[in-house]
Amino acid sequence: MSDRRRPNRREPFDHFARESRHVLVFEPFGNRAGFLCARARELRAVQLEIAAVLALRLERSGVKDGLCLVNAMHITASVFINDDEPGLHADYKRWLEWLAPYDASPERYHHNRTGEDNGDAHHKRQVMGREIVAAITAGKLDFGPWEQIFYGEFDGRRAKRVLVKVIGE
Amino acid sequence: MSDRRRPNRREPFDHFARESRHVLVFEPFGNRAGFLCARARELRAVQLEIAAVLALRLERSGVKDGLCLVNAMHITASVFINDDEPGLHADYKRWLEWLAPYDASPERYHHNRTGEDNGDAHHKRQVMGREIVAAITAGKLDFGPWEQIFYGEFDGRRAKRVLVKVIGE
Amino acid sequence: MSDRRRPNRREPFDHFARESRHVLVFEPFGNRAGFLCARARELRAVQLEIAAVLALRLERSGVKDGLCLVNAMHITASVFINDDEPGLHADYKRWLEWLAPYDASPERYHHNRTGEDNGDAHHKRQVMGREIVAAITAGKLDFGPWEQIFYGEFDGRRAKRVLVKVIGE
Repeated sequence: MSDRRRPNRREPFDHFARESRHVLVFEPFGNRAGFLCARARELRAVQLEIAAVLALRLERSGVKDGLCLVNAMHITASVFINDDEPGLHADYKRWLEWLAPYDASPERYHHNRTGEDNGDAHHKRQVMGREIVAAITAGKLDFGPWEQIFYGEFDGRRAKRVLVKVIGE
Repeated sequence: MSDRRRPNRREPFDHFARESRHVLVFEPFGNRAGFLCARARELRAVQLEIAAVLALRLERSGVKDGLCLVNAMHITASVFINDDEPGLHADYKRWLEWLAPYDASPERYHHNRTGEDNGDAHHKRQVMGREIVAAITAGKLDFGPWEQIFYGEFDGRRAKRVLVKVIGE
Repeated sequence: MSDRRRPNRREPFDHFARESRHVLVFEPFGNRAGFLCARARELRAVQLEIAAVLALRLERSGVKDGLCLVNAMHITASVFINDDEPGLHADYKRWLEWLAPYDASPERYHHNRTGEDNGDAHHKRQVMGREIVAAITAGKLDFGPWEQIFYGEFDGRRAKRVLVKVIGE
């Protein structure tokens, strides 16, 4: 897991790249995100990446009928399913900031006595959830018409990983 | 998936009916629900329907040991496990309205700039969750004494589907 | 499931003890917890116990590749994954008390008209979640560097159970 910064070019798929085993490795986003990779464009890119890797893995695994787990491997991030609509993601950002405001001081979040400033991110992650479990039917994700998988980043300073696990027959 | 309205008779199992593959199709509830199918009686009916379909599917699948996924296929709805107590469901309704009030305007929810008025529903769904995963042991759902599966509807205007997936041996 | 109180000695593993099938039985904590077994020390003990039982079960089951479900079997409790940091657990306690304050009266929580006083606990549980699903790879939990499984207790007066289910090959 490299910690080096990527160049500031922000093409989709550019700021995260490598796949190892069943884990997607996202390069550090380069600054504190506040919410959801800070920008809808990046969020959208991560969503496309997860969808692409999932499709590839389903094909490779040959699983036709089973379950798929997708989870954040870090405790200040979420994997969740909702609408691919930038206005909604902006709403989530504001809402989560109301529910658990960013505050680096150790007064609001005792967790920040450890030297961290991401106490808020641990709370936001609980609201949005760690993982999703989806059904696989006929070799495809069995999704409703608007379901899309997103990765929510609430801290943003370290390389992060998303685990994708497929089981079944 | 039919969009026609059902008659206003509200016997249990009456306002939703069809099963296709491993998916329960709920007819539209006919008006904006606000929360949880608007009325405890309907909520209870949906809960009974899910339980009945689950039992039937477990029997048909012959799975004795495995996992069961139940998820909303729509992004303004939830499947969750809690107590079958109407007072609690009324509490949830009020609490979710405090956490994410219904507001059709695009000022509170940018999502509503799309012409939708259900920005709040996308937030309520995150608090209550999309899915449950339950253990199957000896051919039955391995539940604690008070665990019941509910479908939470926060929008209420379209036909909705709940996916039930059983895997194991 | 015994309801007798344990002596007040609070060594790790002391206030809960028995394992039956794939279920951990926790003895009653002896007083209303408010949150998370009331004390970080107990929370930590429960976390160690879950981790120990999971490791044992993975070894016994021989499963090398699969999924693991860990869920609270009671509807005023949670199983969740986050950081093993006492300051954060204190933050969660305060935050959940803001989101859904303890109030025994039936005015705030209609649920308490039933004679219960744990309406708040049913709300806290929804925020923190009922269950986690984790990947098993090479016979071990496939976790990120800081992921730890916790049991959150929001009522605290009855013996509680945590289910651990392993499936795979």
